[in-house]
Amino acid sequence: MSLLVVGSTAFDTVETPHGTAKQCLGGSSTYFGLAARLFTDVQLVSVVGEDFPDAHRRTFTDAGIDLAGLETKPGKTFAWHGRYSADMNSRETVDVQLNTFGDFKPKVPASYRETPFVFLANGAPATQASVLDQMAAPRFAVADTMDLWIEHNREELLALLPRLDGLILNDEEVKMLTGKSNLIQAGRAALKIGPKLVIVKKGEHGCFLFSTFFHYALPAYPTEHVVDPTGAGDSFAGGFMGYLAGSASISVWNLKRAVAYGTVAASLTVEGFGVDRIAAAERTTIERRYHELQQFVASS
Amino acid sequence: MSLLVVGSTAFDTVETPHGTAKQCLGGSSTYFGLAARLFTDVQLVSVVGEDFPDAHRRTFTDAGIDLAGLETKPGKTFAWHGRYSADMNSRETVDVQLNTFGDFKPKVPASYRETPFVFLANGAPATQASVLDQMAAPRFAVADTMDLWIEHNREELLALLPRLDGLILNDEEVKMLTGKSNLIQAGRAALKIGPKLVIVKKGEHGCFLFSTFFHYALPAYPTEHVVDPTGAGDSFAGGFMGYLAGSASISVWNLKRAVAYGTVAASLTVEGFGVDRIAAAERTTIERRYHELQQFVASS
Repeated sequence: MSLLVVGSTAFDTVETPHGTAKQCLGGSSTYFGLAARLFTDVQLVSVVGEDFPDAHRRTFTDAGIDLAGLETKPGKTFAWHGRYSADMNSRETVDVQLNTFGDFKPKVPASYRETPFVFLANGAPATQASVLDQMAAPRFAVADTMDLWIEHNREELLALLPRLDGLILNDEEVKMLTGKSNLIQAGRAALKIGPKLVIVKKGEHGCFLFSTFFHYALPAYPTEHVVDPTGAGDSFAGGFMGYLAGSASISVWNLKRAVAYGTVAASLTVEGFGVDRIAAAERTTIERRYHELQQFVASS
Repeated sequence: MSLLVVGSTAFDTVETPHGTAKQCLGGSSTYFGLAARLFTDVQLVSVVGEDFPDAHRRTFTDAGIDLAGLETKPGKTFAWHGRYSADMNSRETVDVQLNTFGDFKPKVPASYRETPFVFLANGAPATQASVLDQMAAPRFAVADTMDLWIEHNREELLALLPRLDGLILNDEEVKMLTGKSNLIQAGRAALKIGPKLVIVKKGEHGCFLFSTFFHYALPAYPTEHVVDPTGAGDSFAGGFMGYLAGSASISVWNLKRAVAYGTVAASLTVEGFGVDRIAAAERTTIERRYHELQQFVASS
């Protein structure tokens, strides 16, 4: 089934201990889409400026991603510049130029309104809600969020959560959202706020999935060479949502498999600068890593 | 089969956000022994002062732990005082009085020399080596270590490691030992130094097991109420070694099960102050949590 992602498209400049990549293609919808397209048809709603090059457009279209929802507006494309610490476990934002993304008002094309799987990448909760308002009746809608919205747009976020099937966020964010310092308590508390499914990303420590009737923990794929962690979270979400959209049903087992495919997608993204690795990935690589990950965690 | 543990016995004073416990029974061999006795016969080599009360001795003997190797020396018992941060992810040592443990020279009773399973709890590598010198031919010898020895007694530690079957240490320690900031790289590098098996403990994030022919990752048991993290690592080691010693063979599958039993033992210890919870634990509780943990991580 088709999968719609709504989020940012950006020019990223990234400094890591392995080097610097300048003005490369980035953004939440980009990483998400390039991971999800390995599993299903992807539709993208985002915005870029007039400086967005055809070469970047081709990265999407070559990957089979539908760009009917990619708006081009006067001005420049969203630009982000980040710098990672020596161990790459923390990063600072050196510069952000929101540009055309600053007043992003997602317009869902008529042809996307019946799309059953929807991912709302990190954005203001009111903006995320405006996407749901434009959709007919999504079968499975999931959102990402971040500390900024949890702190400053809490009411809007709390109004959005019960409209979602799932929420994906990281360990610090779920603690901030729920006020619980224990992650298991925090995951359970987040479930009570509304979504039927909460996925807590823990970076190199893997992730937890919380739902009403089962919980699941999966370690990260054992990556030895992290080159650039940018986009890991969005690639995870793309693999997760992509696998589900491409599956016959949203069962316990498919949800667990989807978490593993998300984990694998993230493992590829971090092994190269920007989208290089995930854009070049083929399904055979994904499947090999999926089986390696299953062996890594197999208890028998 | 029998299991020998050599390590500290102590009076612990612990401050956590949940309260303070004063002068309670602690020490590495204590937590290890009280976890391991759930699975097999445990022999203890340690030292205490004349102030060590009979009530504490009974905690061991009631648990079936053999105290033939518990030496009583003139003076006081090792005393430790620690304080945990609000989220219990870090702790400071308020006071340490080594007392009789200061010049601990482990003496293995003649009746223990043929014991097949040996655990060398955290201690100076030369002291740990002196235990191996006293043993006939252990079938499976494993040691713990810490930052102090890695930094200041590195040569002795590097001489000890090839004599071991396994090394158990935490994430920061394995990074320090190997100079690798990536945990997978660090685990592989530690294997090359000598032990056939390296277990890296990551606290609430679970653990990794590295060996020549397989790697394994297991999340922590989903504990919601951490009261006192003291002794979690030694309880893990006790559950791990205890299960192996009680098993028919040291196979891949038994090693994985042993890691899960260690994880469960640690989850019990942290739910109470000091040894309260692990000393009171019964095998039925262990088995129930073992199955809960297996469900938590089951991919199908």
